[in-house]
Amino acid sequence: MSEPRTTIYEVEVMFGDCDPAGIVFFPNYSKWMDASSLNYFRQCGLPSLQQLRKTRGIAGMPLLEIQTRFRRPATYGERLQVHTSVIEWRDKVFIHKHVVKRGDELLCEGTEVRAFVVHPPEDPTLIKAIAIPQDIKDLCR
Amino acid sequence: MSEPRTTIYEVEVMFGDCDPAGIVFFPNYSKWMDASSLNYFRQCGLPSLQQLRKTRGIAGMPLLEIQTRFRRPATYGERLQVHTSVIEWRDKVFIHKHVVKRGDELLCEGTEVRAFVVHPPEDPTLIKAIAIPQDIKDLCR
Amino acid sequence: MSEPRTTIYEVEVMFGDCDPAGIVFFPNYSKWMDASSLNYFRQCGLPSLQQLRKTRGIAGMPLLEIQTRFRRPATYGERLQVHTSVIEWRDKVFIHKHVVKRGDELLCEGTEVRAFVVHPPEDPTLIKAIAIPQDIKDLCR
Amino acid sequence: MSEPRTTIYEVEVMFGDCDPAGIVFFPNYSKWMDASSLNYFRQCGLPSLQQLRKTRGIAGMPLLEIQTRFRRPATYGERLQVHTSVIEWRDKVFIHKHVVKRGDELLCEGTEVRAFVVHPPEDPTLIKAIAIPQDIKDLCR
Repeated sequence: MSEPRTTIYEVEVMFGDCDPAGIVFFPNYSKWMDASSLNYFRQCGLPSLQQLRKTRGIAGMPLLEIQTRFRRPATYGERLQVHTSVIEWRDKVFIHKHVVKRGDELLCEGTEVRAFVVHPPEDPTLIKAIAIPQDIKDLCR
Repeated sequence: MSEPRTTIYEVEVMFGDCDPAGIVFFPNYSKWMDASSLNYFRQCGLPSLQQLRKTRGIAGMPLLEIQTRFRRPATYGERLQVHTSVIEWRDKVFIHKHVVKRGDELLCEGTEVRAFVVHPPEDPTLIKAIAIPQDIKDLCR
Repeated sequence: MSEPRTTIYEVEVMFGDCDPAGIVFFPNYSKWMDASSLNYFRQCGLPSLQQLRKTRGIAGMPLLEIQTRFRRPATYGERLQVHTSVIEWRDKVFIHKHVVKRGDELLCEGTEVRAFVVHPPEDPTLIKAIAIPQDIKDLCR
Repeated sequence: MSEPRTTIYEVEVMFGDCDPAGIVFFPNYSKWMDASSLNYFRQCGLPSLQQLRKTRGIAGMPLLEIQTRFRRPATYGERLQVHTSVIEWRDKVFIHKHVVKRGDELLCEGTEVRAFVVHPPEDPTLIKAIAIPQDIKDLCR
């Protein structure tokens, strides 16, 4: 079995990303993992979220669940890399793995469970998970 | 001439609002002034932004310009008050004044220039400032 | 066995807390849970972080791990409540449970694993978990 | 008179930087200008903030005042450039100019008034502006 495709999203930690302890305030890791998820799909060849909405009615890939472990702190001025892959495709959800590194050092790692959703025609204010389109799964191999 | 109507928006500073110097990271003052602007209009009796969009086509009151002076720092665990008024109504823009205090102490103060905007029917992806509706001005006296 | 002590931290969702889907950007839930953790210890009678540092050398209670499930979205203008307790005290770590509600509706829930840390005298730039002081456990019963 | 030295700080707008209108939430421009200010001084050859603190007792370059004009919106996935210079050195303050562009398009521009500060020995919990060191002015020519 081959390794899943992995993309790398580069982050430069800003002063304002850090807390009074002088280290990255942890919710920023979630923000960067979210940006790395979007970047992953763009790297795989998926159109932008804005285009997906127009052409396929896909309203996004919202989160159902996150789990994150914090190993080592980082601070401003440092460059980090978020290594992102999809480790499991289920029928209606998929699981991202994100590993945040500073070069070779592991800083934090986590998983996200996400779904592709649409606005159901009977009530466009709601969102509903759809079966993940096969062509999207194929793009990301 | 009477004093303009002033509303007070209460903020409790969170750990994550503060920077490595241990004090509020300054863009958070802008975030709180923005929240205080929305609160001002709700206190004046204006419907929510969501309702304004549906019933009157108003897409929001975006910022054209801000100016802020920082006087004293604040830190987490403290309660601040944003005192907000409209100090000038022009034809297409209005000027907010926000004064952030910790009880009697002045922490920071600023102005915002904002406009009421709609999506023009000829291109709904754009926004366009409208003459400020008289009934809205009247509500805020 | 009795229910663990639970504190409630009130949040008013700001416009700037929401994303282009119009709902709370998920890392903000982590920020609010973090604020609710600090609030929990203050409600239990623990001094502020600033004082803990001075009087006991405790540098904070950083996160080792988080897990969060997102159930229902929320938007700006809404008031949410973060219900926070400690569901397990181990020797060197403790586990917070946070349940975010909008009145009776469950929006999101999660756990955090945290430790009490000090700067070890041999290298004050590092942090090291300590056995959780018994008097702190006692305060939080 | 020659043009002042200008540095460019590159930003990729994240989904979480945008608000329910789908555009960059304006306080993020302040955050990026702040990061671009630090980058400016690093590009000029000044040590990091962490090192300045240790070697020269300089506690930072906090803001006294900001002024920003918003011209055009930006959205996630876009790459922006913050062009930063110092347009005036006074005795105890200096004035940054930041121009945020998306390629050739002007998105927003502003000024910041900042000071170099130290913790006065008589009360290390305070900060005090110092005369801007001549060698720092010289570095930034």
